Amino acid sequence: MIQMTLIQIDNYGPWTVTPTPRAEADLQILQAELYADLQRQFAVKGGLVFFTRFDNMLAVTNGVDMDHHLRIQKSINNRYPITVSMGVGTAETPYEAQRSATSALQKYGGAQSEERSEILAIEGLVKPDDSFVQIAHIDINGITDSLTDIIPAYDTSFIVNRVQHFLMKKLIEKGSLLFFIGGDNFMSPCNGMNPEGLLTIIEEIEEETNIALKAGVGKGPNAEKAANLADLALEEIRGGCTYNLVHVMKE
Amino acid sequence: MIQMTLIQIDNYGPWTVTPTPRAEADLQILQAELYADLQRQFAVKGGLVFFTRFDNMLAVTNGVDMDHHLRIQKSINNRYPITVSMGVGTAETPYEAQRSATSALQKYGGAQSEERSEILAIEGLVKPDDSFVQIAHIDINGITDSLTDIIPAYDTSFIVNRVQHFLMKKLIEKGSLLFFIGGDNFMSPCNGMNPEGLLTIIEEIEEETNIALKAGVGKGPNAEKAANLADLALEEIRGGCTYNLVHVMKE
Amino acid sequence: MIQMTLIQIDNYGPWTVTPTPRAEADLQILQAELYADLQRQFAVKGGLVFFTRFDNMLAVTNGVDMDHHLRIQKSINNRYPITVSMGVGTAETPYEAQRSATSALQKYGGAQSEERSEILAIEGLVKPDDSFVQIAHIDINGITDSLTDIIPAYDTSFIVNRVQHFLMKKLIEKGSLLFFIGGDNFMSPCNGMNPEGLLTIIEEIEEETNIALKAGVGKGPNAEKAANLADLALEEIRGGCTYNLVHVMKE
Amino acid sequence: MIQMTLIQIDNYGPWTVTPTPRAEADLQILQAELYADLQRQFAVKGGLVFFTRFDNMLAVTNGVDMDHHLRIQKSINNRYPITVSMGVGTAETPYEAQRSATSALQKYGGAQSEERSEILAIEGLVKPDDSFVQIAHIDINGITDSLTDIIPAYDTSFIVNRVQHFLMKKLIEKGSLLFFIGGDNFMSPCNGMNPEGLLTIIEEIEEETNIALKAGVGKGPNAEKAANLADLALEEIRGGCTYNLVHVMKE
Repeated sequence: MIQMTLIQIDNYGPWTVTPTPRAEADLQILQAELYADLQRQFAVKGGLVFFTRFDNMLAVTNGVDMDHHLRIQKSINNRYPITVSMGVGTAETPYEAQRSATSALQKYGGAQSEERSEILAIEGLVKPDDSFVQIAHIDINGITDSLTDIIPAYDTSFIVNRVQHFLMKKLIEKGSLLFFIGGDNFMSPCNGMNPEGLLTIIEEIEEETNIALKAGVGKGPNAEKAANLADLALEEIRGGCTYNLVHVMKE
Repeated sequence: MIQMTLIQIDNYGPWTVTPTPRAEADLQILQAELYADLQRQFAVKGGLVFFTRFDNMLAVTNGVDMDHHLRIQKSINNRYPITVSMGVGTAETPYEAQRSATSALQKYGGAQSEERSEILAIEGLVKPDDSFVQIAHIDINGITDSLTDIIPAYDTSFIVNRVQHFLMKKLIEKGSLLFFIGGDNFMSPCNGMNPEGLLTIIEEIEEETNIALKAGVGKGPNAEKAANLADLALEEIRGGCTYNLVHVMKE
Repeated sequence: MIQMTLIQIDNYGPWTVTPTPRAEADLQILQAELYADLQRQFAVKGGLVFFTRFDNMLAVTNGVDMDHHLRIQKSINNRYPITVSMGVGTAETPYEAQRSATSALQKYGGAQSEERSEILAIEGLVKPDDSFVQIAHIDINGITDSLTDIIPAYDTSFIVNRVQHFLMKKLIEKGSLLFFIGGDNFMSPCNGMNPEGLLTIIEEIEEETNIALKAGVGKGPNAEKAANLADLALEEIRGGCTYNLVHVMKE
Repeated sequence: MIQMTLIQIDNYGPWTVTPTPRAEADLQILQAELYADLQRQFAVKGGLVFFTRFDNMLAVTNGVDMDHHLRIQKSINNRYPITVSMGVGTAETPYEAQRSATSALQKYGGAQSEERSEILAIEGLVKPDDSFVQIAHIDINGITDSLTDIIPAYDTSFIVNRVQHFLMKKLIEKGSLLFFIGGDNFMSPCNGMNPEGLLTIIEEIEEETNIALKAGVGKGPNAEKAANLADLALEEIRGGCTYNLVHVMKE
């Protein structure tokens, strides 16, 4: 079972334009620092946060209990001009887990409700024995030589975004999620997906976009361990330890 | 003329896996804090940074001179485990400006070169009299009611990413760039584009994706002023001051 | 028993002047952000860090185990241009605990040794059953009306520093420590000290400096709980719930 | 003429205990990050901020104009749960400058007034031609070998605090200020003081405390340049380029 937390800034949209639109640079700094801050606080318990839309962030939080969620909300409330509400859900697949996390929070009112503030809506928490996270770390083969060092910076990010779009479209059908984590890297919480399924997607994308991808897959009791194993698996592909484009490591 | 700066972390990829892959949470925090830091330092001079790929960031930097670029590089070097190189270019369109900024930097070696460090490659700087920035702030109509509060969080971000993909594809043909800035918001440096062109794109996207967009356009001597005017223009559409889906404000 | 951790930046002095003296502003930012970062990471486990000399910080860390100390060191190493070593000690009094924490670390080499890096030297860790922290939150009566709003800002900080100096001198004789935490506030880890002893010191200082102090004392299993209770105790004095200048609250 | 800015958090004391005392760790993080943030924003214009009491900070701000002060206030307001007011003063000596900065702000109400918010009270701004800053960087000779690596960490900070107390007492009589900047380092804005005066103080302190100090003095048009020169002057003493305990460098 995977546990996911939806973190939503309370009534953020209206705040950004009250009384008049706030400087975009300040909003960007606020969003990036809030994300870094939440990442640091969830990471301490083995969680991993993805910036997603910044005002709505999704995190894999197996092992993070109710008290720690509350502590984080309070800590943000004490140091930022905004507050955050959270929904927590669990399921066999990441897609179902975020859906249940979202609906748990939606019950308490809209993201732009003026009443709703610092809600913690827990649909469920994964028990240690059931805790399992599978994460794939996907990147583009030799992007630096083939793109970054040759074509304009924006063209490279255009291609990376295109790949992201294709990956999201194909993975969501399998109940897996896909998040951009910088550079040419993506992380996909993908409980329930097998290597063959991932390989098929990678092959389809190479056909459709002519971009070659590879994926390290990690399996562990929480996001931190799964992500670390995914990194190691990807390193083994890079290092030529395996010729597979999808390589799996488990604890 | 618009001036753009490409900010590239030196030899970042290899660093992230040396000696072994670093914790993903730490890398995410490092990237987000570096972006927030650069944003704060460029903003002081009226610049605006877009996170782009985090290891490669694009900024609109009209009014930011060589000394300030150097100061920022030194300041990052003093406080982070990594260094950044920068390329600066100018042109009539944002696309051409980032292309010239990229090629200026590429001349000094690859992003993963072990020699290249803290390069500042300036192809050109915009003179105050020629300085002009046009930015469009684009968002999705009523996303909170129609998506955020109803469907799962990931599905909303999937739709936002899809819209981004379509916008990037259409805008690049006009020499304009498109960056996601969080929530359902995009900013497009779009010197040289007229409102009709933008409206056409918005209409096409509504047909293709059934998502209704609107755009506030700001024109000013630097990114800060152009972005602020774009925000105000967007507020006027939201406030019903105009029925146009594209509204322009200039100094 | 109280557990204290000495956090020391490795070989920091030489680094600050290599190759030439680094900008003082950058060093101040680095030091403040490192402190905030460590605070956030220790706080998650109920610890509390005092900035002390910034390159050497003392923390009350009851409940923070070896793994968490290692995780923090690694996380700092991944995001800063410097590394930190730590020594951990336990004792009946805070003074003895920091002494043992210091000697544990000193065994591994000097603060400016070029070899020593990321050492974790643990003399001992407090067992849950023995874990006890007593903290006094001391402040100056009505400083805003009597000083901040009337005399020059520097004169007020001069007086606050003078009070700090007197408090340190008297408390160290009792095996208690004293840290400035901003404004007119001090926190004193003071296991083993009784209210009478603290009251005597407060009375002596009023005689010698004509500055009236008050103290809330908290007793708990870790620094966080003790500090919170100390805050509440101080609030009760401020609120007039008690006429004592020293008020104690325990779990 | 030196220009100094007093930065004061509006109504901070009451905020920290509303509705109940906020976690001390959160307050420490907030204060440290606010200081780092202000430092970064003033540094861009050649200013230098000293943390002083954290809720009240003093900065040397020659060259920082009204617009930049306003921009910083707005930027803080957009990203923190608190706002800051500022007073700006100028004089021949740092002491007089901070006095005039303080009184300028005090006119607008108390630090804990519920009405006062985001005030910018400018008594005066230094004209470029009159702009002059003298800063002394003072440290303790061989503290690492003699203290840090031998005695307990708290004892060293006790000695450093004692030295600070003596330095403050003697320098204020000369119209000079003294701020602790970490480690065994102090910075003293000391316009109007001559090397002999500083040497006398250093000699007196060695007699009284048996602690040997040395001082690099820098003279320049703003705080950044003066501080850098002071650092270089101190390096020359450390390097044995001079046997003087006080060494001066000017632009």
